Amino acid sequence: MGQDERFMAMALELARSAKGQTSPNPLVGAVIVQNGQVVGMGAHLKAGEPHAEVHALRMAGEKAKGATLYVTLEPCSHHGKTPPCAEAVVAAGISRAVVAVLDPNPLVAGKGIRLLQDAGVEVIVGVCEIEATVLNEVFFHYIRTRQPFVTVKTASTLDGKMATATGHSRWITGEAARSEVHELRRTHDAILVGVGTLLADDPELTARVGGERYGRQPVRIILDSELRTPLTARVVADHLAPTWIFTTPAAPVEKRMELEAKGVTVIVLDAPLRVTDVLRELGERGITSLLVEGGAEVNGSFLQAMAIQKIISYISLKLVGGSLSPTSYGGVGFATMDKAVTLTNTSIEQVSEQDIRIVGYPQWEPHE
Amino acid sequence: MGQDERFMAMALELARSAKGQTSPNPLVGAVIVQNGQVVGMGAHLKAGEPHAEVHALRMAGEKAKGATLYVTLEPCSHHGKTPPCAEAVVAAGISRAVVAVLDPNPLVAGKGIRLLQDAGVEVIVGVCEIEATVLNEVFFHYIRTRQPFVTVKTASTLDGKMATATGHSRWITGEAARSEVHELRRTHDAILVGVGTLLADDPELTARVGGERYGRQPVRIILDSELRTPLTARVVADHLAPTWIFTTPAAPVEKRMELEAKGVTVIVLDAPLRVTDVLRELGERGITSLLVEGGAEVNGSFLQAMAIQKIISYISLKLVGGSLSPTSYGGVGFATMDKAVTLTNTSIEQVSEQDIRIVGYPQWEPHE
Repeated sequence: MGQDERFMAMALELARSAKGQTSPNPLVGAVIVQNGQVVGMGAHLKAGEPHAEVHALRMAGEKAKGATLYVTLEPCSHHGKTPPCAEAVVAAGISRAVVAVLDPNPLVAGKGIRLLQDAGVEVIVGVCEIEATVLNEVFFHYIRTRQPFVTVKTASTLDGKMATATGHSRWITGEAARSEVHELRRTHDAILVGVGTLLADDPELTARVGGERYGRQPVRIILDSELRTPLTARVVADHLAPTWIFTTPAAPVEKRMELEAKGVTVIVLDAPLRVTDVLRELGERGITSLLVEGGAEVNGSFLQAMAIQKIISYISLKLVGGSLSPTSYGGVGFATMDKAVTLTNTSIEQVSEQDIRIVGYPQWEPHE
Repeated sequence: MGQDERFMAMALELARSAKGQTSPNPLVGAVIVQNGQVVGMGAHLKAGEPHAEVHALRMAGEKAKGATLYVTLEPCSHHGKTPPCAEAVVAAGISRAVVAVLDPNPLVAGKGIRLLQDAGVEVIVGVCEIEATVLNEVFFHYIRTRQPFVTVKTASTLDGKMATATGHSRWITGEAARSEVHELRRTHDAILVGVGTLLADDPELTARVGGERYGRQPVRIILDSELRTPLTARVVADHLAPTWIFTTPAAPVEKRMELEAKGVTVIVLDAPLRVTDVLRELGERGITSLLVEGGAEVNGSFLQAMAIQKIISYISLKLVGGSLSPTSYGGVGFATMDKAVTLTNTSIEQVSEQDIRIVGYPQWEPHE
């Protein structure tokens, strides 16, 4: 690993430390190096607060003159909530800038780089590009599509069951895997389940550690065509996080008013509820990342709609059997095995003695 | 790793080299060491041929005097097809014997050790015991139960499907995984499928490499209560390996005679066909290891009967969906998640970019 990679890895690590708190902004880290010595570092911590480069430049002060800046994302060139970072970099006297990846917005990509180059700064782009892209996979997807990055998280037995034939599902995985799920919730803008899961389990759908809620709580989203969600459901009654229910004109107006009176946001879309419509609506409402924790039917409908960017599958090393036991992805399914969607960039890790975690990215190719 | 472990590992490696060719005998390896130098080695290659110790003693000749013998299984003390090895060891002048594991047959366990000790040989037992036990897991199980060691091999998508909702299943896994399955077949005494699989796929059920059959072919076993197996089925017509069909008195006698005329062995058991009865019958017929490659129902019935010693699950990293797509273990299934059978001594390996292999041993506890 060269010097550039070493300092960029440091910048990436700084960026990661703000995971779950910068939405809708990306995670960005910056390191300033003068004669092989780190003289400044920073990370973007929260939307509206200074960008990573600004924190790092402030720390470096006079030592930024003639130094090298490592930054995980192309410095901005436009006036937003804060002045353009590229100008600040130039003003501070940075002589060399190493950038991991360009701005994902094709309309502005490259403009920050050009501004630096025009001012005589030597610029290198593409160091640790893959890591930087993965780091901001959510942000990149949202900027390009204006729809949330969808992660489907499932937990099943080794023989693919989410529950027994009688519907019993507690617990499939052990504590280590279950606590990872709370961390996943914390780092997503919203969680989505179907009303079936709500009626069966009455989940709280919050991010907890050791039973305690912590950090920013995700918006709780329920797909409920006929507004069968009880007024006594936790997500309605507990006010621990916002709850949005997607429904259709088929739902009784009175129930809708009762739910709204309890503080629930009810969003009415055309019947039948379509995954694509829900995602468009969520994107418009500023949800950049969505964690789907649906039952078989909800997960299956996201699969059928090819609307999944990432999957996280917990597999518990046990067998439960049952031809009627529900599996993690139901629905109609693809007709032939060659139409199955393959996963790329997969990783497989053992979470505990009993549970493994498989992460992958569905590689969507146009189905005819 | 000490010297004893090092030489025992060598003996285990020698034993492994005969995998798939010693049934109904165990795999055994032996190494003889004199002053830190290997002076003899051997493995048991085939039932009726010399035991590992005998090969190693022959190679060592005079150098066996005062040497240490490493052997993966307690030397035999009884006159079988060959004279007792323990006597040969003593006669050769071995002064120290390191044994991995005792004979699994409780009636003779320890007798070989005692014979050595009585003759003044220093004996150490238990070096690499776990490896030696796993190496002969099939033999140990058969000796204790007189029933075959049952391995269920499945292949499914990450969402647990063995086929699409329309029954399409070619191919779930890639070539690397599929060729491992042929090696599995080669090292089992018999393969079992249900008649459903036979009617759907007309499989050949032989061990092949690059399309060529090789080595000892396993007995092909079909569970077929009503003798629906067509006379034109490959397993009936090709005569590439013995075929045994388990059926019940409900099957037409004429069909039975037609199948027998083609060389098929038809075994009639009480209706309904029970896994336990099939296993008892197979044990009596000398089948020590059974590879179950059933459909969902056959695998499910072995699960329900708690008649699985080992599972090998290939998981292809893709999603196919479908609430009607069959899963790897069907049947009734266990009623609640806490009744699911956990797997122990699991291993997880990536077979290719797309496929993983999970191996484990169901830990059966009495279900009420």
